[in-house]
Amino acid sequence: MRKYAPLNLREKLAKLVDHWSPKVIAEVNDYQFKLVKIQGDFVWHDHKDTDEAFIVLDGQVTIEFRDGAVELSAGEMFVVPKGIEHKPFAKHECHLLLVEPRGVVNTGDAGGEKTADNDVWV
Amino acid sequence: MRKYAPLNLREKLAKLVDHWSPKVIAEVNDYQFKLVKIQGDFVWHDHKDTDEAFIVLDGQVTIEFRDGAVELSAGEMFVVPKGIEHKPFAKHECHLLLVEPRGVVNTGDAGGEKTADNDVWV
Repeated sequence: MRKYAPLNLREKLAKLVDHWSPKVIAEVNDYQFKLVKIQGDFVWHDHKDTDEAFIVLDGQVTIEFRDGAVELSAGEMFVVPKGIEHKPFAKHECHLLLVEPRGVVNTGDAGGEKTADNDVWV
Repeated sequence: MRKYAPLNLREKLAKLVDHWSPKVIAEVNDYQFKLVKIQGDFVWHDHKDTDEAFIVLDGQVTIEFRDGAVELSAGEMFVVPKGIEHKPFAKHECHLLLVEPRGVVNTGDAGGEKTADNDVWV
């Protein structure tokens, strides 16, 4: 009988170097699970066609909206609805698991230097 | 400015009573995040139309396949491909986060007493 390998989130996270550079670790149909390390301020952006799930694995992140904010710690999640402008901020390094459809660019249509290559696996 | 509430996985888990009864906690478009507590043996089943993601939050689960198995501990995940028969087993209580499209029944087409009501939120 074959012994299949689990996907260990910590082992995958250890391979991530750059901040704000999500890496794909798994797919469910056409949805992707991405790990990302973040620190500091991101850019205001939205995703016109899709919601986006943030699950905090380590640390804390504040996701700012135009009308408020949500503060997330490890073991907490939040779904940013499609079309809602948001800007993540992490004072200290924070590790996230993102779930969203294949093809979502991290900065939406906002562009800029924090735009990461899409669909890169780790 | 509005302060949005995070979704705390432990707080949601504390509300689950029955084993093998997934409860929806969030949606990303038409995909659902479900928490479930399991213990003991489930039934052989598959999901003809969709992959299914298992993320272990607490404890350990073995997912058996017809040709092998995968053992998962907290912090590990596995995606069961669509159409692949599987049977989860947990010696001790195990807490899982499942990600799959809205409408997936826990026992697939297999039926039986472990079939849970679908699309129940907690």
